[in-house]
Amino acid sequence: MNYQNILQEIYQESLVQPKIGNIATYIPELANVHPDKFGISLTTINGDNFGIGDSNERFSIQSVSKALSLTLAFSLYGEEIWKRVGVEPSGSAFNSLVQLEYEKGIPRNPFINAGALVIADMLVSGLKNPKQDFLDFIRTTSGISTINFDEKVAQSEKNTGYRNAALANFLKSFGNIKNDVEEVLDFYFHQCSISMSCHELNHAFFFFANEGLTQKGIQILNQSQIKRMNALMQTCGFYDESGEFTYRVGLPGKSGVGGGIVALMPKQFIVSTWSPRLNSNGNSELGMFALEQLTTKTGLSIF
Amino acid sequence: MNYQNILQEIYQESLVQPKIGNIATYIPELANVHPDKFGISLTTINGDNFGIGDSNERFSIQSVSKALSLTLAFSLYGEEIWKRVGVEPSGSAFNSLVQLEYEKGIPRNPFINAGALVIADMLVSGLKNPKQDFLDFIRTTSGISTINFDEKVAQSEKNTGYRNAALANFLKSFGNIKNDVEEVLDFYFHQCSISMSCHELNHAFFFFANEGLTQKGIQILNQSQIKRMNALMQTCGFYDESGEFTYRVGLPGKSGVGGGIVALMPKQFIVSTWSPRLNSNGNSELGMFALEQLTTKTGLSIF
Amino acid sequence: MNYQNILQEIYQESLVQPKIGNIATYIPELANVHPDKFGISLTTINGDNFGIGDSNERFSIQSVSKALSLTLAFSLYGEEIWKRVGVEPSGSAFNSLVQLEYEKGIPRNPFINAGALVIADMLVSGLKNPKQDFLDFIRTTSGISTINFDEKVAQSEKNTGYRNAALANFLKSFGNIKNDVEEVLDFYFHQCSISMSCHELNHAFFFFANEGLTQKGIQILNQSQIKRMNALMQTCGFYDESGEFTYRVGLPGKSGVGGGIVALMPKQFIVSTWSPRLNSNGNSELGMFALEQLTTKTGLSIF
Amino acid sequence: MNYQNILQEIYQESLVQPKIGNIATYIPELANVHPDKFGISLTTINGDNFGIGDSNERFSIQSVSKALSLTLAFSLYGEEIWKRVGVEPSGSAFNSLVQLEYEKGIPRNPFINAGALVIADMLVSGLKNPKQDFLDFIRTTSGISTINFDEKVAQSEKNTGYRNAALANFLKSFGNIKNDVEEVLDFYFHQCSISMSCHELNHAFFFFANEGLTQKGIQILNQSQIKRMNALMQTCGFYDESGEFTYRVGLPGKSGVGGGIVALMPKQFIVSTWSPRLNSNGNSELGMFALEQLTTKTGLSIF
Repeated sequence: MNYQNILQEIYQESLVQPKIGNIATYIPELANVHPDKFGISLTTINGDNFGIGDSNERFSIQSVSKALSLTLAFSLYGEEIWKRVGVEPSGSAFNSLVQLEYEKGIPRNPFINAGALVIADMLVSGLKNPKQDFLDFIRTTSGISTINFDEKVAQSEKNTGYRNAALANFLKSFGNIKNDVEEVLDFYFHQCSISMSCHELNHAFFFFANEGLTQKGIQILNQSQIKRMNALMQTCGFYDESGEFTYRVGLPGKSGVGGGIVALMPKQFIVSTWSPRLNSNGNSELGMFALEQLTTKTGLSIF
Repeated sequence: MNYQNILQEIYQESLVQPKIGNIATYIPELANVHPDKFGISLTTINGDNFGIGDSNERFSIQSVSKALSLTLAFSLYGEEIWKRVGVEPSGSAFNSLVQLEYEKGIPRNPFINAGALVIADMLVSGLKNPKQDFLDFIRTTSGISTINFDEKVAQSEKNTGYRNAALANFLKSFGNIKNDVEEVLDFYFHQCSISMSCHELNHAFFFFANEGLTQKGIQILNQSQIKRMNALMQTCGFYDESGEFTYRVGLPGKSGVGGGIVALMPKQFIVSTWSPRLNSNGNSELGMFALEQLTTKTGLSIF
Repeated sequence: MNYQNILQEIYQESLVQPKIGNIATYIPELANVHPDKFGISLTTINGDNFGIGDSNERFSIQSVSKALSLTLAFSLYGEEIWKRVGVEPSGSAFNSLVQLEYEKGIPRNPFINAGALVIADMLVSGLKNPKQDFLDFIRTTSGISTINFDEKVAQSEKNTGYRNAALANFLKSFGNIKNDVEEVLDFYFHQCSISMSCHELNHAFFFFANEGLTQKGIQILNQSQIKRMNALMQTCGFYDESGEFTYRVGLPGKSGVGGGIVALMPKQFIVSTWSPRLNSNGNSELGMFALEQLTTKTGLSIF
Repeated sequence: MNYQNILQEIYQESLVQPKIGNIATYIPELANVHPDKFGISLTTINGDNFGIGDSNERFSIQSVSKALSLTLAFSLYGEEIWKRVGVEPSGSAFNSLVQLEYEKGIPRNPFINAGALVIADMLVSGLKNPKQDFLDFIRTTSGISTINFDEKVAQSEKNTGYRNAALANFLKSFGNIKNDVEEVLDFYFHQCSISMSCHELNHAFFFFANEGLTQKGIQILNQSQIKRMNALMQTCGFYDESGEFTYRVGLPGKSGVGGGIVALMPKQFIVSTWSPRLNSNGNSELGMFALEQLTTKTGLSIF
């Protein structure tokens, strides 16, 4: 498979797509990014790297981080996690409080904000230096020691993140946040503020496609656990558009409001895209287009 | 009408009712009250007072205060209020976040917690010394200068009021709280913490039955405005049991989780009850029973 | 009180209001009515009649009939009714299925369509010749023997009433419809199709204002029951705008999508309006305006 | 892979599982099945068959049929289907009306009842002899000419299927059923009544694992379309437990309240289970257990 040619082809087709969707502005600092940034990067299981466009420029990974925080919590707590958060698609927006009320404070899955806050609470409980330890974990899975928080983004979200504060207090009222609400939010806003490029994301997510092993051979999760993480990304990774992504692209993945998407074909490759214009569900419009083209052109999909 | 005899009769019947319902415990300080406290007090428009049981003992008025904070906001802002809060019964629990999400941050009415928080925000904006000014307002409507906050109760709720914090942050995310979330919550928790007896409540609510005039003749609202306040208490004063209260009792009123209820027959009387055992809707079980007996025995109801 | 002058004044003011709202078209036959029809009729407890505009022209009373069917069911079954239907405002549209699902087939109140279908089912069970007996009941309460169904309207709704069919089947699935779904719907569509003028409605509703007695002295319900019927109209009579009607008008009443409204001041008068343009909640725009003027000008309201 | 040994092992482990869950009784005819029936059948892409237990006994496939009716509709209408039905997991029960109301009559996906009724409506519109043509289609995909409707089951559901009648009428009220409601329900109840064994289901679903080709080489859908059908089964095939099935089993599949489940590993095998005891989500308790064992023991999953 000539991946570089395929990426080139998709890139050209993407550039002529109508410019649909808007950059996320509810976090003021994110609004400073140029909306026409666009990059794709693909890394094969053999370690070959292919990239095009702005694939080496760092951006705010935001909710993409939820797959990594969940992995760390899963490695610490195992199946205990599911006593406090579910594994079902939510059928509603990523920051909805409705379902949380009907389901008595148990978030539907770890990728909606409520669920990610519960996972953040678990990490705050289980890690010695939560923020630093989580950063170190990503540096380990990626093998890249320069990955860091973007304090400006974290602060920006802290100043305006009333809905996340609402969710965290609501969870606390149900007893499903154990630590101080402020501390959990601080961890969560930092987790989301991490800056990475498409290329770096591929390395950080390599173990999802490689039966749990990083590129350097470190075992993050075992094979059965990796299967389950990928399954969760498949059904819940794209908010209330997970069905659409599965239907069109057919790969497990995770998106973020910074415009990034990571997807992967188990035992074959990891692919990341970045384009900050979001559709109404909060997913990158052009990123979804590019990934649909990829699985259509290569015929590679898990289904 | 021999009110003292009627109160006596109702009191006797109430004492032999099965002891149903539980005291509110979600505010730890409230849990210290003896569950069998019970008092009724009735004040006629002519100023005659009738009381029985613990009708002179102060308790935490909690949501009963919402009728008074709304009155103060209404006197300051008039019909402008309804741009930020509705006048419809909610069809859900007093602290539900669901409807708030569907209706984009506009609470259904000023008596559910979300609505009362918006009113609190208006008072924080519109009063020089919000807490003191509100206290003075109640001292004015009641003519009783010793009425005060219960700092222990306010603090107790502050320490555990995660759901109200969730609501306030949620409202803030919709832009329907203008001030600092902490400041609004502090005001709200103090407002709810006020201690009054049944007898004192009658005096504070006297103007609702007297076309807007306090017992001392101070005009709080005009006649048309009083009609509207009473209408709101009728349709929304008892959380998701307003229909039941209207059906059984047939008087406008307001309840609180401290176990208090105030109701009134325009141009005739104000009646308050206190019994801390609450039914599943958060209203005083025995208080509702006593008031139903009152309108049945006297044949006095607005309908 | 010079009611004729007041009606005259309100009528003049109403004519110059902007023509807001649309005629109901979901029942095709109703769409044939001229949208500018407008009438008001007021009947005092002493039997004096005042009218203006199209107050003697018959129109389809639609949901106004629900107050009468409920009365008949209440006289047959008493408080047993409330095992199958609630007394709380719904907080949602008149034909919503949502709340019905959350509350397991028990409609929130007898005035939303689901509740009225349960009442219809009770009447089908309890009456010998349901349709004829119900018609006779209205002829009795009004003293007008020419009141009749409009078969064209009934048929029109039968042909297009898919949402009511959905509600009835849904209720049946919960066991809260006992008879054949088709039979209940047939009764319900007929009940709603009844044609009456404002003037005639006043006579049919006379007993609600007269402690249960019709103009001819027939006891329909006792005083305590009438209080409860009026209470229900107050909290639930205007779909999801009952709070607004109570706030602005301050009288118990019932509206219908044919554009009719009946309201009443206990022991004083009954007033009916007809204007087919409906607001977004399905209530007559001009009718609500006229009634608000009436209670403002007369100072007469239950609050 | 020694599939027969593995099935044998799973079968033994399954027999000693606690007997959890109840047989579906809302369709009276289904209640006659013995709850302890249990069979597994696996067919490889090479045509090898493995079976154990009651794998050759026919049962009511119920909602398993939805994957086949969708396939037929997809082959007739292509992507046009998605104008009338979505591709997102529902986040609620299979027969919920709630989401349908919020989303204005567009069912979330073709596997909840509302969605399947829309698909049924499309087939009634697009087929000459809808019921016979659909039967012929299954006979074609399976290569088994004796497959048939169970008229008793179809009739049984017709007599009691009030909730489906509610859904169909509700969809009709939104204009998303084009044909006569009765005709669509008749088709739907027949489609669900089809009787097949595990072994036969494997043959009928063979093309899902074989890039669209039946065992006899007939092209049902193309490769890209098959990818999309499998994706839909993955995210929506198990009602509000699709996330759980994906998490535990990691294969696309479809379940039915008759106790059947079909799942498949693209390009490798199709596997069917039958055990009529259902969990609270309406899926076969033992079937899910057996399939989780299968992917755990073989290490074969799409993730």
